[in-house]
Amino acid sequence: MNMREDALRIVEEAIQAVYPENAVKKALENLESEGNIRVLAIGKAAWRMARAARESLENRVSEGIVITKYKHSMGNIEGFEIFEAGHPIPDKDTIQATKRVLDMVKDLKGGDLLLFLVSGGGSSLFELPAENVELEDLISITDQLLRSGATILEINAVRKHLSRVKGGHFAETVHPARIFSLVLSDVIGDRLDTIASGPAYPDFTTSQDALRIIEKYDIKLPSRVLNALKKETPKSLENVEARIVGSISIACEAAQVAAEQLGYNSMILTTTLDCEAREAGPFLSAIAREIVSRDRPVKRPCVIILGGETVVHVKGRGLGGRNQELALSAARGIRGLNNVVIASVATDGTDGPTDAAGGIVDGETMTRLGEKGIDVAEVLNNNDSYHALEAVGNLLRTGPTGTNVSDLIILLCK
Amino acid sequence: MNMREDALRIVEEAIQAVYPENAVKKALENLESEGNIRVLAIGKAAWRMARAARESLENRVSEGIVITKYKHSMGNIEGFEIFEAGHPIPDKDTIQATKRVLDMVKDLKGGDLLLFLVSGGGSSLFELPAENVELEDLISITDQLLRSGATILEINAVRKHLSRVKGGHFAETVHPARIFSLVLSDVIGDRLDTIASGPAYPDFTTSQDALRIIEKYDIKLPSRVLNALKKETPKSLENVEARIVGSISIACEAAQVAAEQLGYNSMILTTTLDCEAREAGPFLSAIAREIVSRDRPVKRPCVIILGGETVVHVKGRGLGGRNQELALSAARGIRGLNNVVIASVATDGTDGPTDAAGGIVDGETMTRLGEKGIDVAEVLNNNDSYHALEAVGNLLRTGPTGTNVSDLIILLCK
Repeated sequence: MNMREDALRIVEEAIQAVYPENAVKKALENLESEGNIRVLAIGKAAWRMARAARESLENRVSEGIVITKYKHSMGNIEGFEIFEAGHPIPDKDTIQATKRVLDMVKDLKGGDLLLFLVSGGGSSLFELPAENVELEDLISITDQLLRSGATILEINAVRKHLSRVKGGHFAETVHPARIFSLVLSDVIGDRLDTIASGPAYPDFTTSQDALRIIEKYDIKLPSRVLNALKKETPKSLENVEARIVGSISIACEAAQVAAEQLGYNSMILTTTLDCEAREAGPFLSAIAREIVSRDRPVKRPCVIILGGETVVHVKGRGLGGRNQELALSAARGIRGLNNVVIASVATDGTDGPTDAAGGIVDGETMTRLGEKGIDVAEVLNNNDSYHALEAVGNLLRTGPTGTNVSDLIILLCK
Repeated sequence: MNMREDALRIVEEAIQAVYPENAVKKALENLESEGNIRVLAIGKAAWRMARAARESLENRVSEGIVITKYKHSMGNIEGFEIFEAGHPIPDKDTIQATKRVLDMVKDLKGGDLLLFLVSGGGSSLFELPAENVELEDLISITDQLLRSGATILEINAVRKHLSRVKGGHFAETVHPARIFSLVLSDVIGDRLDTIASGPAYPDFTTSQDALRIIEKYDIKLPSRVLNALKKETPKSLENVEARIVGSISIACEAAQVAAEQLGYNSMILTTTLDCEAREAGPFLSAIAREIVSRDRPVKRPCVIILGGETVVHVKGRGLGGRNQELALSAARGIRGLNNVVIASVATDGTDGPTDAAGGIVDGETMTRLGEKGIDVAEVLNNNDSYHALEAVGNLLRTGPTGTNVSDLIILLCK
């Protein structure tokens, strides 16, 4: 077994499992519906998810709308209208496309089905402000909340109460038709009320929550907006069903299947890793040392699998990304160990502002860096992992993958 | 089950397993020796290890010497001479005591046994400079190497070549008698050639290594010292046997037994954790979330066990220790989760310059901190974990335990 090849194979199979096409087609294999089926796809992967649905369902789909980010449409899809709109901030094209969606769904009846394909970025691509609220109000409030240090959960709680589609309102509009969501999740933890601000999912935040947040951060807003905030979002919806069809968890499980097929024992350690990238590396190395010296927590040959999105607090002026920092920081702790490989990769193929997807290191990486006169501590302090890994052939490149379910990290030991 | 009580019980049993007394007594249960047995105990736990040996072996021991740190002797031990000496820097008392040891072993014959009890701090408590080398030379060279940024492995390589007892030289002196070492290890990875600079273990560093290090860091030293460096340390020793009787690994295994007895599934993840304390917490929390939401990598109820010694880069002026920072930093990621407890504890009972051994947090810790108006990010930036944990009753106190095998970290989920 060549461990580097095995690592690349595992990464590839994990990412393929969450390709928009594969995720949608698998979920639609046994779709049951007697009535009309219409399709709405929103998000950065909307076009690819929509085309996959069109191909799967063939003539059973009568109509569809795609709303994706500018430059993300890849051509016509028969019977579908394609819109491009603003991301990460909604714009007039967002509003226009969303109005067109409400048009499309207004004659749906009981027994009909709206297939709702959701991917990352959906929140800004599908939006219509509540009555008496303007797009500018939404933008200004979001901006004020961000600058006040509000959390993303708090911002969403407010936005859901100022929207005609978010926080479950869209599902109300589609009623009595059913709405079946297939979700490609780039959100750690896969909370369905959070992804795209939950247009087709009951809202767990209340009008009171939203008002309290406005007060807490002393947000300025006109009284007409304050009144809109008082309207409650739906707390239960009978016509909705949702399924996560692509997520880091699904990618990790696919990595596990691939690892086992290659003859490795395997373990998924977490799918919500969110610590500092350059400290996750040493933590993983400590596990590698345990496996090598004491054959635990898993017997060799083995693969430990993690998913999530680590963070980098940039202090230097170098080039890199969180996956590259993680990999490089792991190299020190496995120095000299034969048969240990650690790879960290952004599933969208783009790690930070670089052309690499991540990094892949082994027990010889430190020696090779030393031969080039590269000091790892210095490189990490300068956030310059890209150049260090490039110098020793330890960058991992996939090209843009067309999907995004955050990051995959694997540790192989033999 | 009360999880906090369970956590404290597991910690207690783990530490008890590495008490000097328990470690020594267990190892001596079946000691075979026909000839004389003499005892040498060095290190911070020397007195306690020596007394345990005295009690175990009773009249089979004819003589013994204890060399421990100032104020660490706890009284007379029948038939033993007790010395106290300098730590962390060797002094005249170190030299005097070491000379007395060489006196004691000089009439040992084939078939005789020297029982060598080693604990942390042994390196500075047992030392006699090589011929033509002075104690002041050793101190000056160590100091220069430290200030030049040499690693501890490099410093030890040099010191072993300037000593009459380190780097296996002591075992040569004891020959043809056997020397049986029982080691209480406070060194991550438990390398026998490193603990106390390996007086009774073959040396893997060479005279050439030592000379190269002197050159690399441009260390100033008299020619008589340079000549001493050229003498080789023993690369193989026939009369030595060594056993780690206390270590973080043994503590982790005892924690595992205790956890299983309390009805938990368990897993030892690593025994060499060495990343930044405040990032190990979030990493552990990510594992906790995986267990709670997906029942992996281990089925609940479960305990994940880690050992090692994390680091803290102090930037603030607060009070705390690495275990307290780890625990506090873990609290954020398990906020609101019922049935999750994370504890981190220094096995010597003293975490940083505080009277606490560490911290213990759960899903309600963040709420309790919030009620007191305590901001965790601010506290961590100020390295003030002690006061934050104290305010919400989450400090863990054991008092000095009399042993030291670095840190134990446990995560409990139900």
